[in-house]
Amino acid sequence: MELAMIGLGRMGANMAERLVRGGHTVRGYDPGEAARQQAEARGIVPHANLQNAVAALPTPRVVWLMVPAGQVVDDTIAQLRPLLAAGDMVIDGGNSNYKDTQRRGAQLAEAGIHYIDCGTSGGVWGLAEGYSLMIGGDADAVARLQPVFATLAPTPQTGWGHVGPSGAGHFAKMIHNGIEYGMMQAYAEGFAILKHKQAMDFDLGALAEIWRHGSVVRSWLLDLTADALKRNPQMDGIAPYVADSGEGRWTVAEAIDLNVSAPVITLSLLERLRSRDDDSYADKLLAAMRNEFGGHAVKQG
Amino acid sequence: MELAMIGLGRMGANMAERLVRGGHTVRGYDPGEAARQQAEARGIVPHANLQNAVAALPTPRVVWLMVPAGQVVDDTIAQLRPLLAAGDMVIDGGNSNYKDTQRRGAQLAEAGIHYIDCGTSGGVWGLAEGYSLMIGGDADAVARLQPVFATLAPTPQTGWGHVGPSGAGHFAKMIHNGIEYGMMQAYAEGFAILKHKQAMDFDLGALAEIWRHGSVVRSWLLDLTADALKRNPQMDGIAPYVADSGEGRWTVAEAIDLNVSAPVITLSLLERLRSRDDDSYADKLLAAMRNEFGGHAVKQG
Amino acid sequence: MELAMIGLGRMGANMAERLVRGGHTVRGYDPGEAARQQAEARGIVPHANLQNAVAALPTPRVVWLMVPAGQVVDDTIAQLRPLLAAGDMVIDGGNSNYKDTQRRGAQLAEAGIHYIDCGTSGGVWGLAEGYSLMIGGDADAVARLQPVFATLAPTPQTGWGHVGPSGAGHFAKMIHNGIEYGMMQAYAEGFAILKHKQAMDFDLGALAEIWRHGSVVRSWLLDLTADALKRNPQMDGIAPYVADSGEGRWTVAEAIDLNVSAPVITLSLLERLRSRDDDSYADKLLAAMRNEFGGHAVKQG
Amino acid sequence: MELAMIGLGRMGANMAERLVRGGHTVRGYDPGEAARQQAEARGIVPHANLQNAVAALPTPRVVWLMVPAGQVVDDTIAQLRPLLAAGDMVIDGGNSNYKDTQRRGAQLAEAGIHYIDCGTSGGVWGLAEGYSLMIGGDADAVARLQPVFATLAPTPQTGWGHVGPSGAGHFAKMIHNGIEYGMMQAYAEGFAILKHKQAMDFDLGALAEIWRHGSVVRSWLLDLTADALKRNPQMDGIAPYVADSGEGRWTVAEAIDLNVSAPVITLSLLERLRSRDDDSYADKLLAAMRNEFGGHAVKQG
Repeated sequence: MELAMIGLGRMGANMAERLVRGGHTVRGYDPGEAARQQAEARGIVPHANLQNAVAALPTPRVVWLMVPAGQVVDDTIAQLRPLLAAGDMVIDGGNSNYKDTQRRGAQLAEAGIHYIDCGTSGGVWGLAEGYSLMIGGDADAVARLQPVFATLAPTPQTGWGHVGPSGAGHFAKMIHNGIEYGMMQAYAEGFAILKHKQAMDFDLGALAEIWRHGSVVRSWLLDLTADALKRNPQMDGIAPYVADSGEGRWTVAEAIDLNVSAPVITLSLLERLRSRDDDSYADKLLAAMRNEFGGHAVKQG
Repeated sequence: MELAMIGLGRMGANMAERLVRGGHTVRGYDPGEAARQQAEARGIVPHANLQNAVAALPTPRVVWLMVPAGQVVDDTIAQLRPLLAAGDMVIDGGNSNYKDTQRRGAQLAEAGIHYIDCGTSGGVWGLAEGYSLMIGGDADAVARLQPVFATLAPTPQTGWGHVGPSGAGHFAKMIHNGIEYGMMQAYAEGFAILKHKQAMDFDLGALAEIWRHGSVVRSWLLDLTADALKRNPQMDGIAPYVADSGEGRWTVAEAIDLNVSAPVITLSLLERLRSRDDDSYADKLLAAMRNEFGGHAVKQG
Repeated sequence: MELAMIGLGRMGANMAERLVRGGHTVRGYDPGEAARQQAEARGIVPHANLQNAVAALPTPRVVWLMVPAGQVVDDTIAQLRPLLAAGDMVIDGGNSNYKDTQRRGAQLAEAGIHYIDCGTSGGVWGLAEGYSLMIGGDADAVARLQPVFATLAPTPQTGWGHVGPSGAGHFAKMIHNGIEYGMMQAYAEGFAILKHKQAMDFDLGALAEIWRHGSVVRSWLLDLTADALKRNPQMDGIAPYVADSGEGRWTVAEAIDLNVSAPVITLSLLERLRSRDDDSYADKLLAAMRNEFGGHAVKQG
Repeated sequence: MELAMIGLGRMGANMAERLVRGGHTVRGYDPGEAARQQAEARGIVPHANLQNAVAALPTPRVVWLMVPAGQVVDDTIAQLRPLLAAGDMVIDGGNSNYKDTQRRGAQLAEAGIHYIDCGTSGGVWGLAEGYSLMIGGDADAVARLQPVFATLAPTPQTGWGHVGPSGAGHFAKMIHNGIEYGMMQAYAEGFAILKHKQAMDFDLGALAEIWRHGSVVRSWLLDLTADALKRNPQMDGIAPYVADSGEGRWTVAEAIDLNVSAPVITLSLLERLRSRDDDSYADKLLAAMRNEFGGHAVKQG
């Protein structure tokens, strides 16, 4: 197929290249000249403005958005809107909030434009190994886009699927990331306990390597963790500071809205918040309280 | 009554003074000379060795232990054992593990010595306000000791009671402390959220003062917290480092042994552990994992 | 002062009666005739429609809203708006979300109407003991309303205060309730552990009574809990089903928005959600997983 | 090699068969006649008493224990002790507590007998796919046993390793299971949220299948979960009741002993406890408390 990839950052450029390798024609737009030049070197047809990229497409047009979630998506859609016609398809492959997706989808549907949400997992490894794609939106449009999804996924038949109505793809990706937080935290806690058992002097990378084969906890995350532990077992030079990109928060909020208790996913998020607060007011106040009632000395800080 | 107080640290000396004020004769033993001198100034009859203190008691002898939990209790009992006779009463007022108490009680019972466990709450305020006393052991012995408990408690009729067999007093005190952890953490989190709402610029001491009167969350801990917040609203000079004295750990272990899910008490303990780990290996590993799969930059540390 | 109380449910009627007892003239409106009749018997001047109640007020008018949070507040304000003039004061004493309060306050401010938020704690006991009042909004208006707050509070000088700009009162009340969740859960877990320690056969009401005097965990909530435990130690006839009224959810969301880790308040909410799910899909799936990898039998359900 | 397998339950018999398939001679002992007959059909040489099985071994003798953790291990070692000589090797492949292992290892070392602990993961799938083996104890003995481990593991070079001194293998397995609890809970929570999002009507088996390919959360546990969800998406006939086998508890206790906060592993255990308490006293008391202070109705139970 022929399509435009809007946004040639790390994810967008990688996905575009995987499509090019799969025989598709990909027109790429990015406001950054360097990004466009690198894209050209990877077989993508570069465009310096969005209008030209879209105008060059055959109809029905296929436009894939790979831009930061939030306002940028709305802005990009506003720019695209006058360039598109009924029957065209816009895919949001980013980590948008599913409620935004539902709103955008309803607006574009008024003009007959199909808005497809594609939750995309795989990270920097997706170029080589393929992406896992959770797709929401109109079934007919998804069916027409089958060649694109089949190329992006690990194999034409696996790793992608239509999971529900508009927003369902981003909803599923949100939950995917919530699970990811919980799994990561479980591994991190386990290795931290092992690390603190100094009497046993575990080689964590070697142990992770053992677990990669035949154990109940084997996983792709463990494969990556084993690599990280072998290269840098002391985690030298890495601050105990864990960012979060928003989907964990949405998962926690959604769970509460649905009256589902999800303590492990929730605590995984809170631990990340805690990692970024190295001067906890709560902990200071606790120390002060202990001093108040028990006369326990506080540590000077 | 007349009794010996073994251990004249902050808690032991305060309790002895409250007994003296209540008309009891208190013989005090402590290995430290300074402690003995201060005790004498507070009306306690000082003894430089344990043997003399016990020998001077009328029978049946009453010996109150206020020494650090653990080995010191066992050592003290070993010293006392040959000095005591059937019918004598030994009270452990410290924060001993109830399983140790049950073991010690069973051993002393073989010699007809009553071993009473008295979980003691009230901290540095107990001298003035009285202590809350949870008492385990033989009911007859507890009844004989009534004058002592009635003096130590806030009023003769309230704040003390026989709660069960040997170990029950320390068990109840253990749970009391677990609840205390949870309450403290709840307040600390609440005030931390208020503190971070910078746009509202709350005066936390003033707010705590409002809550002290008529609110659902009013409590003695809140009274103390309000004082601390008024004196030092920024918690200046206090490190975010929260110690724990063991009873929270025992509560968590006991809950699990009893198959009771107690997430709030448990998390309150874990937060204290977390407060003392300012270089979390788990958090470093999480940052490394995010870099592995998503190419997310780690913060240098 | 003279004021109108809009909403004569349990909270509104009690507050109105406390004001009447304090010498204020209170005009009351409620759509329910029974509520109006009961109010009249309590010294409140009943009005069968909102317009009359407000029209009878001297200027500047004082209108206190005690209606359910959410749409009812907006609807009531819409009705009031044409009846009010610059300088009048509207107080929302309910559990409104502080963001709604800020929005409403900004809208009324355009007409010169003061919108005051009053977080109100004290529950059914407030009539007798006074309410704890956290007040947000314009300082001048709060000062004019001083006689009202001084009557509602436990004493004229304590238990009420101006805590910040519009919304700050409801924000403080939200956090108050979050703390309340955590404290309640801490007590509930502690008593549950004691209950499960069957070998010690604790009398939970008696133990709570001991703790009420001199212990670190003494509080008003413990006073109530002791009463409940004495009356019904087995909790006969009470389902293990815990409702929540929204403010705990808002606290959790706010903490995450502010990047504050508040695990105990958060878990307290999740436990309530869990209490209402007696057929947990997560637990079923866990049982199924254990069967998958370990051949462990599942319990039939 | 030639060795004796003591215990021919599901795990023991499967491991023995994998060793037989790999060319080893395996003598098997089990007190159950049926177990011995089935073992014989799988190529294991059955023995009706332990003495004969051990007496038939060449020296140095190799005895693999695959019996329930706890007293049975101690009893079996007591029976074996007089049948063994210096240089013989006993491997405990079960889920023993590492502290028990250290104690047993020290005792056998006095007689020159090597006691090797082998944490074994793989469950019912190990026969076909191989086991992940974490091995603790004397390095020379582990080296001599290399042919056995190489056969049991997925490949001769992967999935097994000497991880430290006596007890280290069981310690590592304990942590492995703690991580397993956390991962399982993360998946279970995620799928439960998806399940409750009824408006999207997710096909959970199909979604799990998508995630198996290319996603960040792909894992062996997800492979099994996808199978379970496809076969029984409603979890019909499965009670929300999750057992635990002890290693999670030990992990939680060990983390606390090491002052490591491991909230996700800990909460995963507590959720299992909670799943087995369908009449929570804590929740009843919370409902009663709400009624006390707020007059909120309790649900009859």
